[in-house]
Amino acid sequence: MPRIVEVRRNILKKNDLLAAALRDRFQSAGVFVTSLVSSPGAGKTTFLERTLTLMAACYRVAALVGDLATDCDAVRLRQSGAPVRQITTGSVCHLDAEMVERSLEGWKLEDLDYLFIENVGNLVCPASYDLGEHLRSVLVSVTEGEDKPLKYPTIFNTADVAIVTKIDLASAVGFDRIALLRNIESVRPGLPVLEVSARANEKLSAWLDLLDRRVEAPRA
Amino acid sequence: MPRIVEVRRNILKKNDLLAAALRDRFQSAGVFVTSLVSSPGAGKTTFLERTLTLMAACYRVAALVGDLATDCDAVRLRQSGAPVRQITTGSVCHLDAEMVERSLEGWKLEDLDYLFIENVGNLVCPASYDLGEHLRSVLVSVTEGEDKPLKYPTIFNTADVAIVTKIDLASAVGFDRIALLRNIESVRPGLPVLEVSARANEKLSAWLDLLDRRVEAPRA
Repeated sequence: MPRIVEVRRNILKKNDLLAAALRDRFQSAGVFVTSLVSSPGAGKTTFLERTLTLMAACYRVAALVGDLATDCDAVRLRQSGAPVRQITTGSVCHLDAEMVERSLEGWKLEDLDYLFIENVGNLVCPASYDLGEHLRSVLVSVTEGEDKPLKYPTIFNTADVAIVTKIDLASAVGFDRIALLRNIESVRPGLPVLEVSARANEKLSAWLDLLDRRVEAPRA
Repeated sequence: MPRIVEVRRNILKKNDLLAAALRDRFQSAGVFVTSLVSSPGAGKTTFLERTLTLMAACYRVAALVGDLATDCDAVRLRQSGAPVRQITTGSVCHLDAEMVERSLEGWKLEDLDYLFIENVGNLVCPASYDLGEHLRSVLVSVTEGEDKPLKYPTIFNTADVAIVTKIDLASAVGFDRIALLRNIESVRPGLPVLEVSARANEKLSAWLDLLDRRVEAPRA
């Protein structure tokens, strides 16, 4: 099906160009942009909620949240006091750079220190779409099974940090920590891994330190 | 982007034709085909493992399992004694009718009573692809949060039954059963809902009864 491949390649190329322009814009505005990708229900929103609340004390933070339907997440995240906009994708299974660009309209990026972009819950498709972010985080919860990095390698290969969520549930689900760490390492040697519980407010400091350092991943 | 929409429409049309042909083939071979869709880590494989093991005593069962990478699931499921084939999709985020058709090559469908198709872990894209199945089940685990039906309505709208998994973890995660049932009902009034734990072997009988009745969903 060469025609389909060609159309898909053009879409991705267009997205890459838009994402590069977005990254330049973020750069000159001095805003550090982090995206969050995971399966549905891995705890992205709870994690982001805690992050926004903790960071709002010292920084000017904002967020974009993607979902197929509803603005539940935006409503929830606004409790943190940060400005939050919902991107509703309809039937589209990922965010792209154009959606991000459109949803920033009217925001003065210079007034922000950190912008977070929560992707649609999907461990596959978001891997292919650069959003112009400086740091891409992939979240995987202890309830999902230790084999996820092996079965969804692409997202681990495009991420800059892996965040193991819901560690407060580790013993209830019989989580095999060593197996998960080994599987992440085998798919993506050297990928930094953080282990957190946003619900129990555990071990979030390593994450905040990482954001504080604003270390950008080198981009091709 | 009219060209992309058109290409996508043609892909889906081609898939629907292939799926209809598959359904006819399944029908005349007398094999009842059930697909399983969920987020990564909702417990599809454990659930299917229990299902195959329990059914193998009375029926001739087989399974196809989709993943981006690895044949871990096929290896695991073969422990049940049933024939199992892995479909490795590479970067494709869903199964389609053509993949199913190709992977059936060499199997005599007349020798089967039940065929199960485990889709790639993804709560979005599989909704659009008919696989010729008689029954589509969507699984959602108690660890994922009660809002999933609202945020991923399409898959609930194309499913014939919803299966709430990992109910043994309900109290550990503070699961709000009423909220989930209400959200399923609001998205898809009347959708049958089963609540199970494959790990604890709980309440699987309603599922086996449903399969036993071989009730087909009416198709457009």
